[in-house]
Amino acid sequence: MTVRAAVAGASGYAGGELLRLLLAHPHIEIGTLTGHSNAGQRLGALQPHLLPLADRVLAPTTAEELAGHDVVFLALPHGQSAAVAEQLGPDVLVVDMGADFRLKEPADWEAYYGSPHAGTWPYGLPELPGARAALAGSKRVAVPGCYPTAVSLALFPAYADGLAEPEAVIVAASGTSGAGKALKPHLLGSEVMGNMSPYGVGGGHRHTPEMIQNLSGPAGERVTVSFTPTLAPMPRGILATCTAAARPGVTAESVRAAYEKAYADEPFVHLLPEGQWPATASVHGSNAVHVQVALDANARRIIAISAIDNLTKGTAGGAVQSMNIALGLPEDTGLSTIGVAP
Amino acid sequence: MTVRAAVAGASGYAGGELLRLLLAHPHIEIGTLTGHSNAGQRLGALQPHLLPLADRVLAPTTAEELAGHDVVFLALPHGQSAAVAEQLGPDVLVVDMGADFRLKEPADWEAYYGSPHAGTWPYGLPELPGARAALAGSKRVAVPGCYPTAVSLALFPAYADGLAEPEAVIVAASGTSGAGKALKPHLLGSEVMGNMSPYGVGGGHRHTPEMIQNLSGPAGERVTVSFTPTLAPMPRGILATCTAAARPGVTAESVRAAYEKAYADEPFVHLLPEGQWPATASVHGSNAVHVQVALDANARRIIAISAIDNLTKGTAGGAVQSMNIALGLPEDTGLSTIGVAP
Amino acid sequence: MTVRAAVAGASGYAGGELLRLLLAHPHIEIGTLTGHSNAGQRLGALQPHLLPLADRVLAPTTAEELAGHDVVFLALPHGQSAAVAEQLGPDVLVVDMGADFRLKEPADWEAYYGSPHAGTWPYGLPELPGARAALAGSKRVAVPGCYPTAVSLALFPAYADGLAEPEAVIVAASGTSGAGKALKPHLLGSEVMGNMSPYGVGGGHRHTPEMIQNLSGPAGERVTVSFTPTLAPMPRGILATCTAAARPGVTAESVRAAYEKAYADEPFVHLLPEGQWPATASVHGSNAVHVQVALDANARRIIAISAIDNLTKGTAGGAVQSMNIALGLPEDTGLSTIGVAP
Amino acid sequence: MTVRAAVAGASGYAGGELLRLLLAHPHIEIGTLTGHSNAGQRLGALQPHLLPLADRVLAPTTAEELAGHDVVFLALPHGQSAAVAEQLGPDVLVVDMGADFRLKEPADWEAYYGSPHAGTWPYGLPELPGARAALAGSKRVAVPGCYPTAVSLALFPAYADGLAEPEAVIVAASGTSGAGKALKPHLLGSEVMGNMSPYGVGGGHRHTPEMIQNLSGPAGERVTVSFTPTLAPMPRGILATCTAAARPGVTAESVRAAYEKAYADEPFVHLLPEGQWPATASVHGSNAVHVQVALDANARRIIAISAIDNLTKGTAGGAVQSMNIALGLPEDTGLSTIGVAP
Repeated sequence: MTVRAAVAGASGYAGGELLRLLLAHPHIEIGTLTGHSNAGQRLGALQPHLLPLADRVLAPTTAEELAGHDVVFLALPHGQSAAVAEQLGPDVLVVDMGADFRLKEPADWEAYYGSPHAGTWPYGLPELPGARAALAGSKRVAVPGCYPTAVSLALFPAYADGLAEPEAVIVAASGTSGAGKALKPHLLGSEVMGNMSPYGVGGGHRHTPEMIQNLSGPAGERVTVSFTPTLAPMPRGILATCTAAARPGVTAESVRAAYEKAYADEPFVHLLPEGQWPATASVHGSNAVHVQVALDANARRIIAISAIDNLTKGTAGGAVQSMNIALGLPEDTGLSTIGVAP
Repeated sequence: MTVRAAVAGASGYAGGELLRLLLAHPHIEIGTLTGHSNAGQRLGALQPHLLPLADRVLAPTTAEELAGHDVVFLALPHGQSAAVAEQLGPDVLVVDMGADFRLKEPADWEAYYGSPHAGTWPYGLPELPGARAALAGSKRVAVPGCYPTAVSLALFPAYADGLAEPEAVIVAASGTSGAGKALKPHLLGSEVMGNMSPYGVGGGHRHTPEMIQNLSGPAGERVTVSFTPTLAPMPRGILATCTAAARPGVTAESVRAAYEKAYADEPFVHLLPEGQWPATASVHGSNAVHVQVALDANARRIIAISAIDNLTKGTAGGAVQSMNIALGLPEDTGLSTIGVAP
Repeated sequence: MTVRAAVAGASGYAGGELLRLLLAHPHIEIGTLTGHSNAGQRLGALQPHLLPLADRVLAPTTAEELAGHDVVFLALPHGQSAAVAEQLGPDVLVVDMGADFRLKEPADWEAYYGSPHAGTWPYGLPELPGARAALAGSKRVAVPGCYPTAVSLALFPAYADGLAEPEAVIVAASGTSGAGKALKPHLLGSEVMGNMSPYGVGGGHRHTPEMIQNLSGPAGERVTVSFTPTLAPMPRGILATCTAAARPGVTAESVRAAYEKAYADEPFVHLLPEGQWPATASVHGSNAVHVQVALDANARRIIAISAIDNLTKGTAGGAVQSMNIALGLPEDTGLSTIGVAP
Repeated sequence: MTVRAAVAGASGYAGGELLRLLLAHPHIEIGTLTGHSNAGQRLGALQPHLLPLADRVLAPTTAEELAGHDVVFLALPHGQSAAVAEQLGPDVLVVDMGADFRLKEPADWEAYYGSPHAGTWPYGLPELPGARAALAGSKRVAVPGCYPTAVSLALFPAYADGLAEPEAVIVAASGTSGAGKALKPHLLGSEVMGNMSPYGVGGGHRHTPEMIQNLSGPAGERVTVSFTPTLAPMPRGILATCTAAARPGVTAESVRAAYEKAYADEPFVHLLPEGQWPATASVHGSNAVHVQVALDANARRIIAISAIDNLTKGTAGGAVQSMNIALGLPEDTGLSTIGVAP
């Protein structure tokens, strides 16, 4: 089986990581690559680590250039996917790595993005209850945000088993590639190195409604989320520290049991042995999710921590995983749980 | 006024930072410097950045070597300060940079350190209500822990004004110097760079009871603390993200007013203009504390964030600040609010 | 074809990187893993990024444990390989990742290592003239040092074509994993981050005679080498800046032509387009070597710069590449030229 | 004595570092601060580490705004200083931190900068032979480039004593602040961290003629320079590895003696004890220069290595040092040799 794939937005970090993974995928033939301001340039000048594609030249991002592929990945700024997707036809598998089709509630979209809601596609976090069924055979996939991936996988087992109060408090640290290649002063290396800083504090980060959606479903009630993202001096990785008050009667054993049950058969999510905590370096470049959980007996809170690579499981790896399901391929085709460390 | 100061533990990070500050202090004459395994070595080989002291040789840490000074700073492993301090006499100002004399409750000490409690000294966080009065003229000072400094200054105004429920949830990121110079595999540069990892998760970190003590006082009731420290890929700095549920009726305005009131006249704590958030790089090498606070209207939580340099305000700068008060000097003598950035 | 491989020294950085590559090699079955002080421990506690091997337990490094494999990789401290190798039998392919069998001249070994010379094995830098023939079918392989790999591939084409005077001046920057996992103060994260420092200055680095050997062969005369290594604040990567005076009549065109000729058919060494210079991030985790060369018309020197990943092409990837040749497999089996960036 | 100083270009890294130093200078009163695109903004938003100046607002860079000061520092893009300087009047001390007035030969300027040469001012590297005399009482100072500062102080003693052949080979690593705050893709944190890369290779870097000028003077003959700069993953610091062939008869002792003689009385340049090598972390934030030198007996080359902070001694600290001399103040007023480490 050979699947011909196009990538719209091949010059950015998400596009580059996707190409890295697609180059290792046994069923993918890489077709058209497009860019916006970089159209016409050699990929070797933009993504020098992708040596086998160095001589490819970026096409402009138009429906004509993207036509004729089995799969089209969209790695575009939010709000731009719908216009491209609707021109691609219903038989093409469209995998949107942007935010456009993740949220179910139009009001959530409009409150956080300020534009009309484009719709809702099957959500590409296969580990969530019911997600795989919706993805199988689908021609449209909404890839989750990087933070919601890390947070949802850290916390949903506690909610699915009724162990946690519906008020989650989350602080996450992300590598700088999560902010993309945009030329902003605070993303300069001189500013980032040796520096930890928060942003989007107080509920304003756009990934917040997506987290609420992902936790409220398993919880069976609305979960409020206090989310504080921080920028860490590293290129990749998310460490999500997620806590929620434990319901009465919850024990360390019942917490651990919930997570063991949730992740016993998952190919990518790994509950670490007791006492060992996740570290982003361990999942660098891999699609693995390392999770650990504990019950703070004094504060009576569940502390669940996950580590992912924001570009791999958090974006491009998650996209390939969902593509595999949509195409009927083994879910782990072309993906690895092995990190590049140290 | 010339004050002759000795430093016990001059080869570590806390001792080195203290010497950096003492070299710039107009009233200090640096006397004996001691070390344990490094006794007999030139300081230039151990702390090459302290050029004016390069030819000093470390003495062993004994009461004899430390005698004859006006001030003795103890930068020793926890549990070792009491034995040294009791030999120094009541007229010597002893500033303990370790944990031994910070906690009021012997039971807290024993639960977290497992040895008999040595006692309680005036607590060197001048910004806390009542602290300056206890420090003035004192001959004993317990310098706070680095995390409790950052956390207490981020949160106590909310508790002092009755704005927050007594259940704080705190996640903090620290630079690696907070872990000291001990040769442990997880502190190797290869492990640390590009990596975020938690430790002491679930309530086990020894700074937890100190935070509870510092917040419960202003709150007038016992505050529980869920504290998760993380190790960040930077040498210095703490970013503390501190949250607590807002009491009914609390508004963004009442929160801001509480912090403006608390910090209007503080020389080192700076409440940032609205919308600007702290960053550890801005306080690198300085005694400043940058604080910002917001109310998350959806999650109904107060989010207070502080940035400090763990070695300066978090350890050695805090020690000098309290020494100044104890000696009757202007509190900011020899200290700066100017960071070394980028 | 299934090849059963053992790894002696599986807990270090070289051993860990080798296992990462072997896990992706289609013909390798990973057999016994050994350690020294870590024998008896789970690999998951030592190399948490190697998830598929997390439950493997390290055996002690003995000939008995290593028996019964087709290939044995030795990732041991220098001087320890010979004793193990001689017990393994002549039919086992032994790939030594240490220094013991790299040098041809016993005097060189003794001058730099101070112990008797163990011998010389076929040298695992296939790109050097004549190297592939010596490796094909061999049962013994000496993997090159990381610096000699980077330096030799940057400079040998200039010497092979008679373009450079036999006095090379080389300054290289290495990531900290090149120094291994040994617990030394200067390798602590707090010391390394934000810091560049040289070491082994003045001709003392043990890789120097290996470079001289590799350059003198193609040059047909003895090349002297001034080599200064520096430690850079990154976990991986070597950037080697290599210069030599240009012989009279040498032009920019003749220099470029020499490199194009040398690397036209090499699977892993990539001469970048003119004007684009190597960067270690582009080869992170890959077996690729990026090379660029220029002629400084004013100083009349050839400047050749290479970037490698010290753990991949510089150690474990080079080992696998040579193993492939020794076993008669396609040279690039299980290896990639695609970096993990950013 | 109170000196009123204006800073043109206060929003960049050089301007920010200068203000950090001026805030600690006992004779300076900080006057007007100007910016270009940032005129009208609060300094607290641009340089949050300069807390005492947070409420200052940047004026536009015009002669009117800069009038009425005793000293005007120009931290402007190259080529823009002359137009401002000529409007400031002959009695104002103008300290140019740009390149405009450093070079003696108009042909050098035109070859490397492509515009007409503005002139030559007294050169602000006091440690060079004759420099102090030219600076004393001068109303114009050209602050050296950061690389020429590091390189010249590493090598000139060897040339002044006739120990080295006139062909220097230099490789230097710089922190990213040396490239300024310009928004360029390769300066993004995601690109810089974990990465070493060269630039300006082959003789093209604009600091090359300045190095040639500084070494040729003491040498008494023209010294050619092969200079390769590299970008290191750290915000600050330059490590310059400088080598030159030793003249016949030169010994390790004669080399060391030359450096001891050159730096015996220098307040900022420190020749390290034998066997200890410079590290950029040791001079972080300080005006100190750490130097070490060795003779490679096999390669017969002198290896001289220096470490500076590119923003302090390499730019703003050097500017203050020269200002002190020009004003007749003690040369080290307001400057420190103490680094901020780790």
